[in-house]
Amino acid sequence: MNKLSPQLRQPVQPKDWTAGIERPQTLLDHVVEDPDPLVDLSHRPVVSARQFDRAKTMQLCRLAALYETTPALIQLPLTGKILISAFYEPSTRTRLSFESAWHRLGGDVMSITDPASTGIAKGESLEDVAEMFNNYGDLVVLRDSSNEAVYEMLEALRIPIINGGNGTDEHPTQALTDLYALFKWRPDLMGEQVPEERKVRMGIIGVPNRMRTVRSLLLFLSLFAPAFKEVVIISESDTNFDDGQREELEEAGLKLRVTPKLDTELPELDVIYINSIAWVGDSYVKLGERLRLSADSALKDGAIILHPLARGEELATDLDQTEHNWYFAQARGAVFIRMALLTTLTQRIHQVMDTPE
Amino acid sequence: MNKLSPQLRQPVQPKDWTAGIERPQTLLDHVVEDPDPLVDLSHRPVVSARQFDRAKTMQLCRLAALYETTPALIQLPLTGKILISAFYEPSTRTRLSFESAWHRLGGDVMSITDPASTGIAKGESLEDVAEMFNNYGDLVVLRDSSNEAVYEMLEALRIPIINGGNGTDEHPTQALTDLYALFKWRPDLMGEQVPEERKVRMGIIGVPNRMRTVRSLLLFLSLFAPAFKEVVIISESDTNFDDGQREELEEAGLKLRVTPKLDTELPELDVIYINSIAWVGDSYVKLGERLRLSADSALKDGAIILHPLARGEELATDLDQTEHNWYFAQARGAVFIRMALLTTLTQRIHQVMDTPE
Amino acid sequence: MNKLSPQLRQPVQPKDWTAGIERPQTLLDHVVEDPDPLVDLSHRPVVSARQFDRAKTMQLCRLAALYETTPALIQLPLTGKILISAFYEPSTRTRLSFESAWHRLGGDVMSITDPASTGIAKGESLEDVAEMFNNYGDLVVLRDSSNEAVYEMLEALRIPIINGGNGTDEHPTQALTDLYALFKWRPDLMGEQVPEERKVRMGIIGVPNRMRTVRSLLLFLSLFAPAFKEVVIISESDTNFDDGQREELEEAGLKLRVTPKLDTELPELDVIYINSIAWVGDSYVKLGERLRLSADSALKDGAIILHPLARGEELATDLDQTEHNWYFAQARGAVFIRMALLTTLTQRIHQVMDTPE
Repeated sequence: MNKLSPQLRQPVQPKDWTAGIERPQTLLDHVVEDPDPLVDLSHRPVVSARQFDRAKTMQLCRLAALYETTPALIQLPLTGKILISAFYEPSTRTRLSFESAWHRLGGDVMSITDPASTGIAKGESLEDVAEMFNNYGDLVVLRDSSNEAVYEMLEALRIPIINGGNGTDEHPTQALTDLYALFKWRPDLMGEQVPEERKVRMGIIGVPNRMRTVRSLLLFLSLFAPAFKEVVIISESDTNFDDGQREELEEAGLKLRVTPKLDTELPELDVIYINSIAWVGDSYVKLGERLRLSADSALKDGAIILHPLARGEELATDLDQTEHNWYFAQARGAVFIRMALLTTLTQRIHQVMDTPE
Repeated sequence: MNKLSPQLRQPVQPKDWTAGIERPQTLLDHVVEDPDPLVDLSHRPVVSARQFDRAKTMQLCRLAALYETTPALIQLPLTGKILISAFYEPSTRTRLSFESAWHRLGGDVMSITDPASTGIAKGESLEDVAEMFNNYGDLVVLRDSSNEAVYEMLEALRIPIINGGNGTDEHPTQALTDLYALFKWRPDLMGEQVPEERKVRMGIIGVPNRMRTVRSLLLFLSLFAPAFKEVVIISESDTNFDDGQREELEEAGLKLRVTPKLDTELPELDVIYINSIAWVGDSYVKLGERLRLSADSALKDGAIILHPLARGEELATDLDQTEHNWYFAQARGAVFIRMALLTTLTQRIHQVMDTPE
Repeated sequence: MNKLSPQLRQPVQPKDWTAGIERPQTLLDHVVEDPDPLVDLSHRPVVSARQFDRAKTMQLCRLAALYETTPALIQLPLTGKILISAFYEPSTRTRLSFESAWHRLGGDVMSITDPASTGIAKGESLEDVAEMFNNYGDLVVLRDSSNEAVYEMLEALRIPIINGGNGTDEHPTQALTDLYALFKWRPDLMGEQVPEERKVRMGIIGVPNRMRTVRSLLLFLSLFAPAFKEVVIISESDTNFDDGQREELEEAGLKLRVTPKLDTELPELDVIYINSIAWVGDSYVKLGERLRLSADSALKDGAIILHPLARGEELATDLDQTEHNWYFAQARGAVFIRMALLTTLTQRIHQVMDTPE
């Protein structure tokens, strides 16, 4: 076996140091189990971050942590249930995370990944497609490049739908994933009151009115306003907010500041959220050249970086092996937070939580 | 939560008034269970409506009604079985209805939805593809734009195949779906003798020699000829039948009449079947402008409309909320009738019917 | 039912005479069960034929034969496990054989069949994709037109990966499939010593340095060198081996000879391996016109033909009904040998073999 690559001489190794088992356990211990806020989400569509409150978000994160710390489920709550995974705008990462979550709960999946082959391409209305979905599945995840498609479909749906990204509007489950990573890192940030010295300064490299992930994330952050000294929007764009967008967040208590300068902010940031893609006009454009992070960036000790991935050049791979890399832990949590949400929407939480029958 | 869309403030509602639970129950009560006709279909290919007789069709509709009235299956008869869902001509609706049916029976699915990626595109023969399917799956559903492909594949298959639409030839499971809707509405139409005053007049807006759904439907209707005062083909085409097609149906007892005039017929029709798509030459064309239905059409009281969907402009959405809308009930039944057929072909009916071992 | 095609008047028949149940049984009886060589493969990536030795190969073939002779599994060892089936180079046959094997072991599958829709198309690195796969699945099968992609992905993977064909390099599971067919035919060829009169002469129509299937097959054959009088490479190419490729095989004991003449070799060959496709430069080209087999070819009595399929014109269909056709048995075995390998990599062999706990 002389010519055998050294990579092949041994088993693959569980070398994941990014998201130790103690992290979700700490979150789990920190939150008191309470099924009530989740019961309220039963059989709901999930389209906007506005549908969540502090209690719902905390219980979802807690249930995600329960899943992440449970090696194998005894009961598979979604056995016999069918997910319709409808990605009219292509996405491997979001699609696979939902499908993986559904499978791990015991369910089956039907995927639509080729928009050109669908009735919609032939002119079928979204209401008619929704009526079809009612008959064929138990829950829909929809990704569409239009802001409105999910709302049109909702008119005719009798099964829950999850918005997996609608144009430049929202992507609430990505924001839940971001929050779950944040609270695994610091469960105390979920508190109704956070002592001044425990508050964090968070930087968001992105454009709130053009990036659906940032829009949804800010709405979720506003539920936990006491956690933040400040949320700094780092953007080179001239217009960063839609009418009323900033006001809504500030009324909820979030302290916002906008600046184009990454370098001067970086040494003061405890959490940096960065994203690779901005929706401008009809096409994706890369963020500005200057808004990049690498191991050479002036990062504060202990600061964590979040990124929804996939990444482009804005996030250098030399950060992967540093303590700042929480984006891999964030990616890992994507499955567990979606398992929590799916269990909730399908009214199966009594199988995994202590709920009165 | 001021900016929250009202649609998101409540759970999705089971607002399906189109196909009440009493409908399949009435059909179920009307037909005496008899497994023998279905045993005869065991391990058969299903390519043509000609393979069915009155007894087989009634027992399939009965089994479909049993599935539709059963909230959850105790046994999953297709656990461990694999469906090969081969759609060389794209179709979301038919594909998902088969896959949903198979999943609901407990089986797994492998889909082929991208013709360009297959061996057939590289020149592989259909016999060789069939030989591959023998080894990898337990049943095949094939949709192909050629009339002959399913017959070529059949030469080499050792597992059952279902014709999911072959060119302009047939689409027998769509016709079964149509019949199941018809008999949920009026189970007495299944009778060997139907009193004159109970017979119905059915209009079919379509071209029998160019539309596979219409071709298969007429063959099925001819099994239940006593139910019909008349079947009126409403078509603006010059040639509506292939050689011998009309004669075969009339010999079976069906009273046929052809007319291009929808408006004069409409007030006399109890059942109207309409379809959106006609295969002409090498391309799909829309039906004539005049052959359209809307809430303003002169529909008889209590008349029902069937449509295999997806629809175009020939069927106005203002009919959806009327009593004439049976096309949604028809779409809903598509999964249950296919569950019945799949259970039958895979020799699993003893798990859901009272059959002697 | 006058117009009913005769094909539709009867059930599909189990007319498979190519791979009788006695064949895998003979192999099964011939090899003494020993789990140790397979335990050594637990949680390994499988990229190259070089990772196997004689004992591992024999035990995998034995386990495949156990699966092939077992009508239904009592335990489904991969229940709850997720396969990521990533075919960045399209392939229906290899993809379905892996997915079928995984399903038959009880697992769920997520497929990626449209390279254009993936993050890789948008410039995402293979390491990042691998990191995503770690979180979403339990095992990856990768088909890629690049030789290097599987090695790049391996850098970041914490779950096993199987090379389902990497450019012109290797396709080890196809070679295992070839061997399993060979040993079902003649289990005694697995012997450490094979008497002179029992040795076989094998012809390989193909180019070892351009065809991944041939490259991997030759490496496996070299583990069983005592079985072969000679392995004759039948090729019209000027260069058939990479630097050191021939030497490595000969050092392992394989007697190799290269000739462009099929006709003169054919009467002396006991086993003929033929393949349809050669990778030359950037495109597939058909093999030379003269390198074809048909029922008119001067085949030795009892000689068997192997072909990984899909086939082109190099293998005439008039051979299908002859005793020489072992390529259908080979195709049939593709699922069982992959079931054996998947059970091994996922550390589930204790559920199907007698292993000490």
